[in-house]
Amino acid sequence: MSLDKKLHYFFYPENVAVIGASRSISSVGRVVLENFAGHFKGKVFPINPNTEEIMGIKTHKKVSDVREKIDLAVICVPSKFVVSVFKDSLKKKIPAVIIVSAGFNEIGNHELADELKTLINKNKEICRVIGPNCLGVLNTENSVDSLFLPAYKLGRPKNGNISFISQSGALGSTVLDWASMKKYGVSKFISYGNAFDVNELDLIEYLVHDEKTKVICAYIEGLADGRKFFEKIKSLSKKKPVILLKGGTSEKGGKAVLSHTASLAGNNEAFNALFKQTKLIKAENLMELFDFARVFSRLQKPTGNRIQIITDGGGYGILMVDSIEKYGLTMAKPRKETVQKLKKIMPPYVIIDNPIDLTGDATNERYLDTVKACLNDNNIDLLAIIILYQVPKIDSSIIEVIAGLNDLHKKPLVVLSVGGEYSELHQRELEKEGVVNFSYPFEAVKSLKAFTEYYK
Amino acid sequence: MSLDKKLHYFFYPENVAVIGASRSISSVGRVVLENFAGHFKGKVFPINPNTEEIMGIKTHKKVSDVREKIDLAVICVPSKFVVSVFKDSLKKKIPAVIIVSAGFNEIGNHELADELKTLINKNKEICRVIGPNCLGVLNTENSVDSLFLPAYKLGRPKNGNISFISQSGALGSTVLDWASMKKYGVSKFISYGNAFDVNELDLIEYLVHDEKTKVICAYIEGLADGRKFFEKIKSLSKKKPVILLKGGTSEKGGKAVLSHTASLAGNNEAFNALFKQTKLIKAENLMELFDFARVFSRLQKPTGNRIQIITDGGGYGILMVDSIEKYGLTMAKPRKETVQKLKKIMPPYVIIDNPIDLTGDATNERYLDTVKACLNDNNIDLLAIIILYQVPKIDSSIIEVIAGLNDLHKKPLVVLSVGGEYSELHQRELEKEGVVNFSYPFEAVKSLKAFTEYYK
Repeated sequence: MSLDKKLHYFFYPENVAVIGASRSISSVGRVVLENFAGHFKGKVFPINPNTEEIMGIKTHKKVSDVREKIDLAVICVPSKFVVSVFKDSLKKKIPAVIIVSAGFNEIGNHELADELKTLINKNKEICRVIGPNCLGVLNTENSVDSLFLPAYKLGRPKNGNISFISQSGALGSTVLDWASMKKYGVSKFISYGNAFDVNELDLIEYLVHDEKTKVICAYIEGLADGRKFFEKIKSLSKKKPVILLKGGTSEKGGKAVLSHTASLAGNNEAFNALFKQTKLIKAENLMELFDFARVFSRLQKPTGNRIQIITDGGGYGILMVDSIEKYGLTMAKPRKETVQKLKKIMPPYVIIDNPIDLTGDATNERYLDTVKACLNDNNIDLLAIIILYQVPKIDSSIIEVIAGLNDLHKKPLVVLSVGGEYSELHQRELEKEGVVNFSYPFEAVKSLKAFTEYYK
Repeated sequence: MSLDKKLHYFFYPENVAVIGASRSISSVGRVVLENFAGHFKGKVFPINPNTEEIMGIKTHKKVSDVREKIDLAVICVPSKFVVSVFKDSLKKKIPAVIIVSAGFNEIGNHELADELKTLINKNKEICRVIGPNCLGVLNTENSVDSLFLPAYKLGRPKNGNISFISQSGALGSTVLDWASMKKYGVSKFISYGNAFDVNELDLIEYLVHDEKTKVICAYIEGLADGRKFFEKIKSLSKKKPVILLKGGTSEKGGKAVLSHTASLAGNNEAFNALFKQTKLIKAENLMELFDFARVFSRLQKPTGNRIQIITDGGGYGILMVDSIEKYGLTMAKPRKETVQKLKKIMPPYVIIDNPIDLTGDATNERYLDTVKACLNDNNIDLLAIIILYQVPKIDSSIIEVIAGLNDLHKKPLVVLSVGGEYSELHQRELEKEGVVNFSYPFEAVKSLKAFTEYYK
């Protein structure tokens, strides 16, 4: 069976078994069962040797007792029972198994780790495994959800085009949680923990070929096979944007990686070469990971890197220009026709240049006219629209103006604003309408830089 | 009269005149009058030649018609009337005048600008002037407030110890708005616009001697007198932390400054020398300005730069270590006694090192014990407490635990967390309790770096 075909069962199973499903509320096995019993359309089989039913669903003592075919098993039992229940899942020929349980090499339990690893490796033809020591998989399309954290603590994002893999469960869950709050759509999330079988490269390869995924984000501490990763990522990263945040780039950080996911942080210089020699996109920190994901998820492909600034605050426009020169986009030079057209309809103190400064008495109409003119100017590739909502004559219908212009899909545009609750309210509303918003010029510029470099 | 004494009237006037007060709702003169008629304890005199009363307050035709002494006049009339009403305020010997009105050199109206400037310069002994083309002054202590933006758009922060001066009105107002939302206390805010008289150096000097101000933030595009600024800031910046965000550091940004506040952006290399040779603190961007203001406002003076990390998410701890090495703090090495004590009471898989990884099943008690032990360890100067609120066993009473430990004032500590609404809720609650929170490791490290460097 091809890799893709086998990994497919992790994301699109028909029937699922939860091994170690439990009656006790807020236990891992219970939360996972609840996830599947909620919106998942397939059949769910709770496995528990000590009870007859959980949440009104009949239980089986062993997964091999189930008569129906099972595509995916989620193992939630304590580490000492994992080998025996996994053996039983092999007997049943389940093609995909997620081992959520922790307590292996990451806490120095090497004997048990080796036993399980050997067993998994011997049986790769029958079954592929994600984990152990992980949150497993979320597919927002069909509610496959092995995340053992309740939704009030960890929001599940809506369905969308960002997929995310994370070696660290806790860090991965913060990203999901962030996407959920920000209303960014996620396709697939995988926390793969100690990676006894399925590793970062397998998952990236699967997601590159997954048509529901537009952009792939990854938090990686160490590579299972550096050489192979290097070879394969070259062509994979050409096919789809892959944004990578590497943990353990520092000497002491690398040491900490070893005790976290028991993986070698890998040679930092080798990683830098990787970023230079492939189209892999480097996120320097978590903020860049979030920011880059947003632009790649929402913006259409750019025609170049010439950016036009429109602002109602001179100082903010100046900070944007400073950032553009610092991080390396090109300041657009609007066409003469655009300048003349705008000069005709604007008050004389409005500065039509780059930045275009609509000044502190800017109105919604001035924004409408200016953005429209810039969208039709082929000297301009990207638009940065600064709106300081605090100025007197801007009112809330500016949201409709900008959302309407964004819906024309003429050029990639981003909106910048900063301030208090009134500003944040408008940012959120614009985000809901599909517009990408930033608070700080350097954020916007770095993101657009990564974005235009990728599509160059 | 000394500089301090004269500027004092801007912030602590007894009687105030609003010249150009208006009946028409949401006009500049009306909003300013409303500000003063609200919480300001002194007497307010609306000046308007065409009406008898506004908001039930008797008006005067000219400010010189008022019999009582006036300490501060706010001029809100159109630019063409400014010279004549200013002459009348000179007749009345008003010691402090804010000219809010725009329409001078910043829009090329040089003749009018020069006339006003000459008049102001001739009469400096009688009267000091802030503006024109500015928002003027906010003093949260006594509600002196010439900001012509209504409070629903532009939040007024609570009284506190941050003071902020801004050459740009719109940019300045975003900072106020931000402080208001984040519940950071502000003492004095000044938007000084075209700076015909009172300039950035006068204001910084005043604020350094103002006992209500603990930290000064400044957004500056150009200097009135570079040499004098250089000479004076050396000793001023030793007395109190002054954080400076310079607009127009790039070539094109410098050009834009000229058409914004009609000031020369100044030699960028000269500014870099300024940062190197004085204790002036450089904010690279608006985010750093906000972040640095927060740590200087709230944290006690540090004993050094050795930082200890406590985390419940291994990956997040690793990113913190990476940032510490990148931006240059020192990783603390906890005392043997601390390590032994914690090892005794923690489960065997908890890693007591730096970072201390309390792991994904961390509890509030584990945080309490660990933070306490670190606060008592004199090998540690600073504490970075990472709390991923998503993990199963942390509950909301962690807020009380951390706030209680912060209230001991033993060491500067910051809390890091990231995620969705559940996380943000806890961040906000901790902020209310006086704890400094960050979302991203690089933010926290850069802020603590600026902070420890200043007090070195």
